[in-house]
Amino acid sequence: MTQSHTADVLISEVGPRDGLQNASSIMPTEAKRRWISALANCGIPEIEVGSFVPAKILPQLADTAEVVAHTNTIAGVDVAVLVPNLRGAQNALAAGVDKMTVPLSVSETHSLKNVRRTHAQMFEEVRSIRAAIDAAPERERPQLEGSLSTAFGCTLEGAIPESKILSIAETLMACGCDEVGLSDTTGYADPAAVRHLIKVVRGVVGNEHLTGIHLHNTRGLGLANALAAFESGLTTFDASMGGLGGCPFAPGASGNIVTEDLVFMFEAMGVSTGIDLDALLGVREILREALPDEPIYGFTPDAGLPLGFHQLKQTA
Amino acid sequence: MTQSHTADVLISEVGPRDGLQNASSIMPTEAKRRWISALANCGIPEIEVGSFVPAKILPQLADTAEVVAHTNTIAGVDVAVLVPNLRGAQNALAAGVDKMTVPLSVSETHSLKNVRRTHAQMFEEVRSIRAAIDAAPERERPQLEGSLSTAFGCTLEGAIPESKILSIAETLMACGCDEVGLSDTTGYADPAAVRHLIKVVRGVVGNEHLTGIHLHNTRGLGLANALAAFESGLTTFDASMGGLGGCPFAPGASGNIVTEDLVFMFEAMGVSTGIDLDALLGVREILREALPDEPIYGFTPDAGLPLGFHQLKQTA
Repeated sequence: MTQSHTADVLISEVGPRDGLQNASSIMPTEAKRRWISALANCGIPEIEVGSFVPAKILPQLADTAEVVAHTNTIAGVDVAVLVPNLRGAQNALAAGVDKMTVPLSVSETHSLKNVRRTHAQMFEEVRSIRAAIDAAPERERPQLEGSLSTAFGCTLEGAIPESKILSIAETLMACGCDEVGLSDTTGYADPAAVRHLIKVVRGVVGNEHLTGIHLHNTRGLGLANALAAFESGLTTFDASMGGLGGCPFAPGASGNIVTEDLVFMFEAMGVSTGIDLDALLGVREILREALPDEPIYGFTPDAGLPLGFHQLKQTA
Repeated sequence: MTQSHTADVLISEVGPRDGLQNASSIMPTEAKRRWISALANCGIPEIEVGSFVPAKILPQLADTAEVVAHTNTIAGVDVAVLVPNLRGAQNALAAGVDKMTVPLSVSETHSLKNVRRTHAQMFEEVRSIRAAIDAAPERERPQLEGSLSTAFGCTLEGAIPESKILSIAETLMACGCDEVGLSDTTGYADPAAVRHLIKVVRGVVGNEHLTGIHLHNTRGLGLANALAAFESGLTTFDASMGGLGGCPFAPGASGNIVTEDLVFMFEAMGVSTGIDLDALLGVREILREALPDEPIYGFTPDAGLPLGFHQLKQTA
């Protein structure tokens, strides 16, 4: 079960999952624990800490169960994971998570490459996952999100017809998802497309069932897209520290939006995140030490905070 | 006199001025000619080609008169320059330009560092410049813009009171400017501040007298700020190829928004720029050859255009 937060927006740090999944080296479990604890300590309300996938596919995330167990010892942070199938969901349930996200690529070509399943097979997985969740005691049931991956276009298929996206969103809800999310896996989104897709997907699933978006900064539009999404009513934003991340199965796609820059944008606008930005900037050192060969970036970290900048609300 | 353009927004390439002013090496005049011709050839409708300042202050721009003369031979592009004072404006008039911008830093501390003049002295300069323009034959009179530099905060003074900004905007118009522009010299702006300042400044000068904004990407918010400005009704956007640029007198301020990423954002949204994006990406090679030691960046150039991406309208 997810916790309630009082900030205006919820920033979900996906670096430990999306970032590390794309890293060339493997972060030791002990370093993950340290990094995640430090992130939580800044007030990050939700962290996607790993993926329940076979270790041979993503060795970087082979310790996800251990990392979940550690994160569950930290008060005030929701533990999210990615699960590609029923087996992953069962492992997530056993580990105890607050939220699980099933990625369903609206590009069937990408779906086959990414999780080796057709759309029809993915819907079956989601139904089974729903049943597995419902079989758990009520207080242990995580939120189930169906993520519409490559929603803004696919590096293999190009644009995906809107009717297909809407049909998939509806079917995901019918298969038992609590919510759907939009994912710009490939960095193809632009602010107008973000607004439009939010509007039409909310039209079929209802506003309360689409609240989050996962953006990449591949073409530099990440924060503009986040702004458009916020103004269209979304309140949950995935981001990764230092812009780590990407999808190794989507050629040319790279880098989530930078958590530090996103937090700065919202806080500068007077939109509270509940995250202590000064503390967050300090956590980059932990990431750098833990993954010394992995490039990270961030404009706000490089430039520093503006003279006289104060966050309206600090972490509770 | 400026030309009429049919695109939805006007992108003013300021790399040859703001970019080169901040470069550690000096681009040879011949390379500037080649670069500017190539930019114009992509459909860039306005280029800020230099500053009429003493060569000992900005040796990078010492050849501005020659560069203006060259740019005037290219059909379809407006020639803009920066002038800090009457002497500069006289030189600009003699060279023949379509637009001159006088930077007036709303932070008086920055004004003194940047142009060594108080606000009162700057207003006097603007009045003299207006008189000099009016003394020219009507068809040779350029547009006169007063640019509100450090409008979103100053690295030396921090936030500048809104009442001071509004008073300066009004006075600039009273001194004979045709329009005022907003300049985020320091990269302090955020989308909410952009919207607010546009609204209040338009309130005192009239919508038709504030149409342009000059943004830096110092904290990564450049395109989000451009989006906010566009949605608030602005139509002229300064940007520099590869994010060259910055102000050497404002510590920590660096890099205009990247022209290539800005053009991609607008074109992806269906907002026409009149610029051929494919051709523009090719011009980076000319810049790289001309300034091999200067770092340039750009997300869209690195990632390439999305599969199936087509511009709605190409260059006329």
